[in-house]
Amino acid sequence: MQTFSAINPLLNQVGEDVMGFLNEIQLIYPQAISLGSGRPDEQYFGVADLPDLFDRYVHTIRAAGTEDRQAVMNRLGQYNRTKGIINNLVAKYLENDEGIRAAPEDILITVGTQESLVLSLITLCNREQDIIMVEDPAYVGITHLAIINGYRVQPVPVHADGISLEIMEEKIQYHAQQGKKVKLVYVTPDFQNPTGISMSLEKRYRLLEMAQQYDFLILEDNAYGDFSYGEHKPPALKALDTYKRVLYLRSFSKTLYPSLRLGALVAGQMIRDKDREVPLSDQLAKTKGYITVNTPAVNQAVLGGLLIKNNCTLKIMNEEKVAHMKRKRDRLLAALHSSLTPAVAPWAAGIQWNVPQGGFFVTVQVPFTITREDVITCAEQYGVLFTPMSFFYFDEGGHNQIRLAFSYLRDEQVSTAIERLALFLKSKVPVNNKMQYHEYRK
Amino acid sequence: MQTFSAINPLLNQVGEDVMGFLNEIQLIYPQAISLGSGRPDEQYFGVADLPDLFDRYVHTIRAAGTEDRQAVMNRLGQYNRTKGIINNLVAKYLENDEGIRAAPEDILITVGTQESLVLSLITLCNREQDIIMVEDPAYVGITHLAIINGYRVQPVPVHADGISLEIMEEKIQYHAQQGKKVKLVYVTPDFQNPTGISMSLEKRYRLLEMAQQYDFLILEDNAYGDFSYGEHKPPALKALDTYKRVLYLRSFSKTLYPSLRLGALVAGQMIRDKDREVPLSDQLAKTKGYITVNTPAVNQAVLGGLLIKNNCTLKIMNEEKVAHMKRKRDRLLAALHSSLTPAVAPWAAGIQWNVPQGGFFVTVQVPFTITREDVITCAEQYGVLFTPMSFFYFDEGGHNQIRLAFSYLRDEQVSTAIERLALFLKSKVPVNNKMQYHEYRK
Repeated sequence: MQTFSAINPLLNQVGEDVMGFLNEIQLIYPQAISLGSGRPDEQYFGVADLPDLFDRYVHTIRAAGTEDRQAVMNRLGQYNRTKGIINNLVAKYLENDEGIRAAPEDILITVGTQESLVLSLITLCNREQDIIMVEDPAYVGITHLAIINGYRVQPVPVHADGISLEIMEEKIQYHAQQGKKVKLVYVTPDFQNPTGISMSLEKRYRLLEMAQQYDFLILEDNAYGDFSYGEHKPPALKALDTYKRVLYLRSFSKTLYPSLRLGALVAGQMIRDKDREVPLSDQLAKTKGYITVNTPAVNQAVLGGLLIKNNCTLKIMNEEKVAHMKRKRDRLLAALHSSLTPAVAPWAAGIQWNVPQGGFFVTVQVPFTITREDVITCAEQYGVLFTPMSFFYFDEGGHNQIRLAFSYLRDEQVSTAIERLALFLKSKVPVNNKMQYHEYRK
Repeated sequence: MQTFSAINPLLNQVGEDVMGFLNEIQLIYPQAISLGSGRPDEQYFGVADLPDLFDRYVHTIRAAGTEDRQAVMNRLGQYNRTKGIINNLVAKYLENDEGIRAAPEDILITVGTQESLVLSLITLCNREQDIIMVEDPAYVGITHLAIINGYRVQPVPVHADGISLEIMEEKIQYHAQQGKKVKLVYVTPDFQNPTGISMSLEKRYRLLEMAQQYDFLILEDNAYGDFSYGEHKPPALKALDTYKRVLYLRSFSKTLYPSLRLGALVAGQMIRDKDREVPLSDQLAKTKGYITVNTPAVNQAVLGGLLIKNNCTLKIMNEEKVAHMKRKRDRLLAALHSSLTPAVAPWAAGIQWNVPQGGFFVTVQVPFTITREDVITCAEQYGVLFTPMSFFYFDEGGHNQIRLAFSYLRDEQVSTAIERLALFLKSKVPVNNKMQYHEYRK
């Protein structure tokens, strides 16, 4: 068989295929409990409701118009509005649940947030002169997408209260001197994947001010915002966006379920198209016409039916799911505490973790380096799977951090998973460190 | 409100937004009969069967394994295989209906052919040195996609028997001398949109030979192949592909209905990835992870249920639909003949049209120039809408051709539409031509 060697050379410039690697290890060691997978918990999906929700949407559309059932069905099967068919319902939902006011025509219903990212990059960025800034570490869906498509990416470190605005500002100024423009800044302000970190309210305001000052747009990725475990979550950037600097990327993969593949991209900006001013959402829709043409109308109808059923709020429907996820976080934190507290595990004195106020992830800091091979060793010898944080860094970084995902764990797995992890971590602590510590305690 | 002027400058290099323009005119003149829209006929969609087909798929999966219904449903809601979940069924379908043998793992189930194009370009092409050759005229989904993403495109004329291989070969050699490589050649061999032309069997074989000789891959777009009205349609290029030079792009938008947004991308090639040989389908799947992540599993389940129900052939199910479409083509050709034949319309002597052996489109050649403004005039004054062929050309071309689409017409509209079109065309024939012709007949 002939081999075609010449593919897009940029494909080989992306980092680890995180999910591919984790899946591969899981297949080899099926008994390993996964602290790697950030999948949502399936018991709340409700896929079986699909026919009823679809029917409810059809019924509502029919009741609101003059078409018969067959005509509504036929229209649902046909090519349709590129921006989507349930934008009015999603607009109400965004106002109810997120405090975001958006006109239906400023919203695109997309094939998930990943498509929203594709549309934003292609529509807005000029490969030659524009720079996309990303949180570091970040969801690889943005960085790898940008790399394989030939866009310039610049990482900016994430601190405990979110992206470092000081380093961002330095970099913006530096690149401006080089004749380059920072066009987009990608952030996940709520319970970031991979770190679990939230951006402080003060930083949210300052980031919006900087967007205005330095003329960039913010890609606000909200996949985890519904999973808030604290008293008061700061509002979304988009809800504070008086300068219209934010493109809001709403995922429904965690709020509902992933295989519906639905997201919403909210853009209220005006842009110049030749000699006219047009809504950015119109240009995004043009681009969408060349990526997926339409978002499947039958899937939109299912979400539409759900929004109708729940009066355009999903908070009540998700209450139990969020409460359960909070319990899993609490269990995980308690297990970390009981397995790694100095009283029990003096060798673990250098190990720390954050307390995420929401989402699916906890960051654990360790006083040694974690490699790709450690993941395999840990799965094989200790029966637990995790993700090195370094997989999520743009260049080097995160070599002494790991990401623990608790979203896909069963309740009864949590303590066992952490006990096993603790044994692995203990095996990694250098012998002289253990001894030094022991001597110190004497 | 602030205006952001700096968007991707390539967005303004694409030609007419064909569908946008036609929709706009249709909105202004709702009474105009549309010969512009190539939408499929809605009466055969069967959207109402969706819950039953979904259920049939779930039932079959359950019967084949040990999971209970809830577990199957949960898995259908979760993130899933990037390549798709119904690949074995689609492989059988391709063998039954197309004579294409493909291993399930060489197939990607995509969010329609448009996503298949995106994946192919991003995975295979190097913006700096690769060239994508396209039929001219062509479906704008390939050309506009390539342009806004910064790829180099070269048009090659379409003759009555398909793309001109002579001109293609000249261009390949010319670009090779310039240090550029023709990487992909995009063709629609069966009943091309916009012309209705089919590629001859001889040309299919020669194109495959040329792909081997000049080391390029062929993107074979098959959206209309099911709609064959002749005795013997030549096999798909992919069914003749002994050299493994074809990426086969199967759309289900016309075969089923557009809003399911399902396509299949068939790639059996091996490529070099760093120092290993890997299946091209694996690399395409990696790219898909950064475009749409997964194709909606619930939609795949619906197609899966349909394939199971029909023993992995859709030919019988589609018989009536295809026969009806053939009748519409026949009606259209008969109407053209009776309205424009010299005996009835001596002024129309210079007007000709092709007889497509399948698909949705007829090309009409006229002895004068057709402009964008003519579309508006014709809709306003004559009550009929058509598409100038020039909209589908990469540069200049097609100024004296129009595309007539008969797929979305109701049977009883056909003769009225052509009568109206004839009146418009008559108004366009230069007066002295009409007189000359009249004098000549005397």
